[in-house]
Amino acid sequence: MGSLGSYSGNGYSISNETIGKVITCKAAVAYGPGEPLVVEEIRVDPPQKMEVRVRILFTSICHTDLSFWQGENEEQRMYPRILGHEASGVVESVGEGVTDIETGDHVVPIFNGECLECVHCKSEKTNLCEKFRVNPMKSTMWSDGKCRFSTKEGKPIYHFLNTSTFTEYTVLDSACVVKIDQNAPLQKMTLLSCGVSTGLGAVWNTANVQAGATVAVFGLGAVGLAVVEGARARGASRIIGVDINTEKRIKGEKIGITDFINPKDLDKPLHEKIRELTEGGVHYSFECAGNLDVLREAFLSTHDGWGFTVILGIHPTPRLLPLHPMELFDGRRIVGSVFGDFKGKSQLPYFASQCMKGEVKLDEFITHEMPFSKINESFKLLIDGKSLRCLLHL
Amino acid sequence: MGSLGSYSGNGYSISNETIGKVITCKAAVAYGPGEPLVVEEIRVDPPQKMEVRVRILFTSICHTDLSFWQGENEEQRMYPRILGHEASGVVESVGEGVTDIETGDHVVPIFNGECLECVHCKSEKTNLCEKFRVNPMKSTMWSDGKCRFSTKEGKPIYHFLNTSTFTEYTVLDSACVVKIDQNAPLQKMTLLSCGVSTGLGAVWNTANVQAGATVAVFGLGAVGLAVVEGARARGASRIIGVDINTEKRIKGEKIGITDFINPKDLDKPLHEKIRELTEGGVHYSFECAGNLDVLREAFLSTHDGWGFTVILGIHPTPRLLPLHPMELFDGRRIVGSVFGDFKGKSQLPYFASQCMKGEVKLDEFITHEMPFSKINESFKLLIDGKSLRCLLHL
Ligand SMILES: [Zn+2]
Ligand SMILES: [Zn+2]
Ligand SMILES: [Zn+2]
Ligand SMILES: [Zn+2]
Repeated sequence: MGSLGSYSGNGYSISNETIGKVITCKAAVAYGPGEPLVVEEIRVDPPQKMEVRVRILFTSICHTDLSFWQGENEEQRMYPRILGHEASGVVESVGEGVTDIETGDHVVPIFNGECLECVHCKSEKTNLCEKFRVNPMKSTMWSDGKCRFSTKEGKPIYHFLNTSTFTEYTVLDSACVVKIDQNAPLQKMTLLSCGVSTGLGAVWNTANVQAGATVAVFGLGAVGLAVVEGARARGASRIIGVDINTEKRIKGEKIGITDFINPKDLDKPLHEKIRELTEGGVHYSFECAGNLDVLREAFLSTHDGWGFTVILGIHPTPRLLPLHPMELFDGRRIVGSVFGDFKGKSQLPYFASQCMKGEVKLDEFITHEMPFSKINESFKLLIDGKSLRCLLHL
Repeated sequence: MGSLGSYSGNGYSISNETIGKVITCKAAVAYGPGEPLVVEEIRVDPPQKMEVRVRILFTSICHTDLSFWQGENEEQRMYPRILGHEASGVVESVGEGVTDIETGDHVVPIFNGECLECVHCKSEKTNLCEKFRVNPMKSTMWSDGKCRFSTKEGKPIYHFLNTSTFTEYTVLDSACVVKIDQNAPLQKMTLLSCGVSTGLGAVWNTANVQAGATVAVFGLGAVGLAVVEGARARGASRIIGVDINTEKRIKGEKIGITDFINPKDLDKPLHEKIRELTEGGVHYSFECAGNLDVLREAFLSTHDGWGFTVILGIHPTPRLLPLHPMELFDGRRIVGSVFGDFKGKSQLPYFASQCMKGEVKLDEFITHEMPFSKINESFKLLIDGKSLRCLLHL
């Protein structure tokens, strides 16, 4: 295997020769923290009950992959493992009981699944499925606690974040597979799999930013820029971008920031500067840097009485929230947002249509493209802050 | 002075002989942390521009008075000082520019004022007035930074929490005086001045608890019991009261708790017990104990995905919030609530009418009554956990 099968038309079709069989294909396997991924042949089992096997066509690297690759999560050093969670592809086959997805469907994997049936999925207040919510501690399939990947020697290869997309074929729980319009541009839809949905959703769903509001965004990586795009699309009157890398200003302005601040250039605390610019503070701030000192500045940059801070960054530190309980009495609120509070299966298809109509602009996010075999180069670009998203073609 | 003036009818009328003059009357003056209050004659200046002089008829002691009296606030050891902020009375006279209040009006002082004109007062999202929000650091009048109280020797006596009610006469900014129905029972209206409004408002305004919801209340003092009453009035299906004093159970059940837990009786963490009782956690929890370990239990006692914790307790500790930032990604929210998010001048009159109609029951809150001269005894009752509210008659 390892070929694209028989794709045709303006979409991608797929042969059904492999259905029910083990597939041998290429994957980028992580063998240890910080070690270059090894692109090699692996074996992928057929999907079991309520599972889906997907031919991944495009994948990109997100900071969460990076932090796991670098071994920041001490407790989760499960190797060998296939990382990756932002991708798009075509369904190769489905397991028993899967009725909403079929061979040939265009799909986007989601690391924060939606079973549609649990008490959480039935609640309007949360997108955290009881079974398939994001869980970095999970490294096997839900149904039997086993791996669907193995090395050519038959050794299991662990799964990652409900997805594992650094492989030509992956197996996912159907709760983690979202079917999207066959006419949607599949390459760009990769962005909806994590970063863009996370950032935009935080603005639209978690904060519900309204036209005229003022916004500050801390950290102008892909997620932060997706926040900017979300705020722009909602008609925010002022969007302040903050980053310690002044080169981020250019991209930020292309997407929609109205002001750029490099905290290193300031002779006063960042939150004081932002309060000066915005008559006492912004309505909404978004922490996309994964840094607790930045988090505190983001909190304090909002206006007292109604300021609303959304945490999007991952904080792999034992340190607690740097806030005093009495500071919550000033009327500032702070919340976390997972996957932009999108319910993936229910809501991403409509979000995809908004992107297709141009209500959301995705053009600026893919800065590089290269073949899958160069995945280690792609990691390097992200580490060096040179890329937003580098699309790998499988 | 020091007499009640010429009260008549079913309300309280007041003579106008004192208008424009300095009044000599009795007050309970604090001279140092932990020292018994001294009930003595003081001088009270006439109200200045936008101020109101009130004949306090009833006052009670709240934990905030206690903590200031005990000197827990290192930075605010301003003596001599008149404490007290929960009270009711009749307007003696008003200063220049006051148009919404006049001599003879029945009023309740509010420590968290409402000027009705600032950007905060005009916002629907906050009850924190720019000028007159609760501010324990403030000890003089807003207009001229001076005191309206003085000792017989002419030494200034500091103000407290915009109110200072342990005195027969006090002067307040009109933003901190709420006019209520002349037919409302003034004694009970004292409760609306702080504790009952704080607790009920946290349920109604901050959390907006709906019928059928599950609720846990940590700390069954007056504020916690007001939370219970608010939850009962809203039709909560389960109200779990938590206190380390088992005697609190009786009062709690009278008002409406369905379950009582003394954490000392448990062989497992409190939040685990509450999650067991409520299929994974309560919808809402209210921290009324002013203890950070309790705060953490309150947070964890709510259901993931939609749990909502309201902090009402005062935390005079340098310790930070005992929460990890990643814990906010489980969908639990935590907010602070000041004065139950009531806008005092705009909303307390209606709240008073709800109390008069019996929608809110106030009978259980006043457990003791005594003359003002016994104020030190009243402090002792509260310290010993023997009283909820002891009404002092002036
Ligand atoms: Zn990601
Ligand atoms: Zn579910
Ligand atoms: Zn109080
Ligand atoms: Zn105001």
